[in-house]
Amino acid sequence: MILPPHLTVRGGHLRIGEHDTVELAERFGTPLYVTDEMRIRKNFKRLSGALNDYYPDIRVLYAAKANGNLAILRVLASMGAGADVFSAGEVTLALAAGMRPESLLFNGSSKSPSDLALAVEKGVRVSVDSLDELRQLDRAAGAVGKTVDIAFRVNPEITVPTHPKIATGLATSKFGIPAGDILDAYHQALAAEHINPAGIHCHIGSQILDVEPFAREVDVLIDLTGDLIDIGVDLAFIDIGGGLGIPYRRETDFAPTPEEYAGAVMPVFLNGIRELGIAPELWVEPGRWLVADSTILLTRVNSVKAAHKTFANVDAGFNLLIRPAMYDSYHEVFAANKMDACLEREYSIAGPICETGDILAEDRLLPDLAAGDIIAVLDAGAYGFAMSSQYNSRPRCAEVILSGENAGLMRRAETIDDLTAPMEIPPWQA
Amino acid sequence: MILPPHLTVRGGHLRIGEHDTVELAERFGTPLYVTDEMRIRKNFKRLSGALNDYYPDIRVLYAAKANGNLAILRVLASMGAGADVFSAGEVTLALAAGMRPESLLFNGSSKSPSDLALAVEKGVRVSVDSLDELRQLDRAAGAVGKTVDIAFRVNPEITVPTHPKIATGLATSKFGIPAGDILDAYHQALAAEHINPAGIHCHIGSQILDVEPFAREVDVLIDLTGDLIDIGVDLAFIDIGGGLGIPYRRETDFAPTPEEYAGAVMPVFLNGIRELGIAPELWVEPGRWLVADSTILLTRVNSVKAAHKTFANVDAGFNLLIRPAMYDSYHEVFAANKMDACLEREYSIAGPICETGDILAEDRLLPDLAAGDIIAVLDAGAYGFAMSSQYNSRPRCAEVILSGENAGLMRRAETIDDLTAPMEIPPWQA
Repeated sequence: MILPPHLTVRGGHLRIGEHDTVELAERFGTPLYVTDEMRIRKNFKRLSGALNDYYPDIRVLYAAKANGNLAILRVLASMGAGADVFSAGEVTLALAAGMRPESLLFNGSSKSPSDLALAVEKGVRVSVDSLDELRQLDRAAGAVGKTVDIAFRVNPEITVPTHPKIATGLATSKFGIPAGDILDAYHQALAAEHINPAGIHCHIGSQILDVEPFAREVDVLIDLTGDLIDIGVDLAFIDIGGGLGIPYRRETDFAPTPEEYAGAVMPVFLNGIRELGIAPELWVEPGRWLVADSTILLTRVNSVKAAHKTFANVDAGFNLLIRPAMYDSYHEVFAANKMDACLEREYSIAGPICETGDILAEDRLLPDLAAGDIIAVLDAGAYGFAMSSQYNSRPRCAEVILSGENAGLMRRAETIDDLTAPMEIPPWQA
Repeated sequence: MILPPHLTVRGGHLRIGEHDTVELAERFGTPLYVTDEMRIRKNFKRLSGALNDYYPDIRVLYAAKANGNLAILRVLASMGAGADVFSAGEVTLALAAGMRPESLLFNGSSKSPSDLALAVEKGVRVSVDSLDELRQLDRAAGAVGKTVDIAFRVNPEITVPTHPKIATGLATSKFGIPAGDILDAYHQALAAEHINPAGIHCHIGSQILDVEPFAREVDVLIDLTGDLIDIGVDLAFIDIGGGLGIPYRRETDFAPTPEEYAGAVMPVFLNGIRELGIAPELWVEPGRWLVADSTILLTRVNSVKAAHKTFANVDAGFNLLIRPAMYDSYHEVFAANKMDACLEREYSIAGPICETGDILAEDRLLPDLAAGDIIAVLDAGAYGFAMSSQYNSRPRCAEVILSGENAGLMRRAETIDDLTAPMEIPPWQA
């Protein structure tokens, strides 16, 4: 059993930070997301520190989509993070958490007119994804007499080893402007009245466990930056996106460290800007790496069934953690109240949702399980609650955050009333 | 272009029921789910009629998970439907819609202690999925001095041609008790003090486009029913579940009609019960077939981008309709405001979510599109809004229901305040 340092065992119980997970499940009920704030702080320091060791002008934009709870955003804001935001909701949450507008980048391939107006109003930089969007943004800024700082998102046409649904830099991806068309885009930005091309932006995918594609990506961006200097564009920032993976299978996954990541990308970046004679800010957009391992999902065993396999049926399913069902993702699981017991049998941990695919973990060697046992699902902090639904009319669970000895709700559990609150009775049914 | 009868074209605009979709998009905003109540009524009549032509004692239990809006449940309740429910939320919604407790079946492989207590309290029959659950339910009923009518869910070990994530009758599925173990389960139910084994239940999967597996399933259930008579179990109902598919690709899919479905299963059922000399109720659990084609999702084009493909970037993504991203599902799309225009180009309809997989429809021949155009996504009534999320901090859209000339909200659009309402500020962050 390999545990990260913020997870420990005492008296047969799994602990997170300074807290007994079984007591947390008892106190707050299950299912329950539990986040250790200290782990996020440590992750942030390590990643930003690894980059800062090479270059002072690093800006870390947290990919807010990984986990958009305000309490998490506040922790990251207090560390100096900005955010990569993808919607009006994320802009609003990031600002409410205390991030400054100029530390946000409004990203995304499909921004609505009101999204663009919000960016202009708040002074949030925009990563522009198409020429159509450029024209719309120019008009939106012109309508209120402002100028907007933008980057274009480049599609670098790099193939990366990750799940195809989250590989964003493929030639056929919906994201970005093909590298071959990017000079024309900047020409148009220079010609636009209310647009200031201040940066260049790229993101090649998510959960990437090899640093080499990141180095290639930086190389592409440096090349394009050189071309941009030639046409008179003076870049204030180069945003290399996020995507650094984590070892979900601790026993077998090789995952690069932040130091290895920095060691791969920073020399390429530093050589590149030295040759070009520029000193832009370097922006990075980590999401998963900052928050995934900070959080566990606690779920209670409702029943055990011996059929063709042995199932431990639990109270959390893909309504709360969709990654295993949607991406065949692997999450470590432990019997949180039986950490010292012998591993006796293979169990599939099955959720309560009406789909065969609602299996959180398949064929895992665990102690003998019974109704009432608590299963801890690890590394649930990124794309966990953020992707949750109320499928099967299930209210969503609570989220707890820990800070040293303190434990408090950062989201209350929903009730059935929360399901019906937005429903309306059409007049003819009343 | 093949359209179902409740979708028509007038003045170049797509209409649903008696309503212009472009006007609906204007009036209620986009994205927008729009449901034609009359279509649901027609579907219900046709399916129940096809079965009733063979046998009078048919009970239709709507699979509430397909679309749990109260207005939809009220429509089906008014037609005499009960419901296949999978959670305390679905029980509560079905009862609130006017369905009687005895017309519900509480289904599912992972029921919590409070789920079982609710079923006992409300007098809802339970489909029991394991011996562990049987013992818990017996105790729960005993605690309040009641007896509960149950069915066991049988795993018939039938392979069906559908997506593996929704094939529930496979030998390895998490659902049901293997057919070989079912007699022992009924023996235990007979011995339990507060359990009345009143039925038998099976469900082989979802979106099945061949009637033959349903006939095989009924055959398995009849065989088991014969065995049960021998041990003294007198079944009041046989529940054959749902799963009848619909032709998402109208041009090429072969989908059985309800008449063909009834023609396959009813003779097997009728011969079987005649030979056994019994006359139990026949329960069916359709979900998708009743509601899928009643509903379209209207989404507005934010921008158009010519890259390696041509993308129409719209304001609805897998936050609102996850089926294409999760199951590679196909939904027909039309340009609702350009129904008479020539088909000019292949577009991929891409949502606003930060994932490469967020494509609602791939490479579809459509008229020339521009920002502001309205795309209609067909057959979005089942597993559409029901599986929606707030991913990327996006408030969920409104749902409108139509009844003849009337159009009214059955769910208001969420706002960013709805995202933050359940969030709590931990004391040390306050």
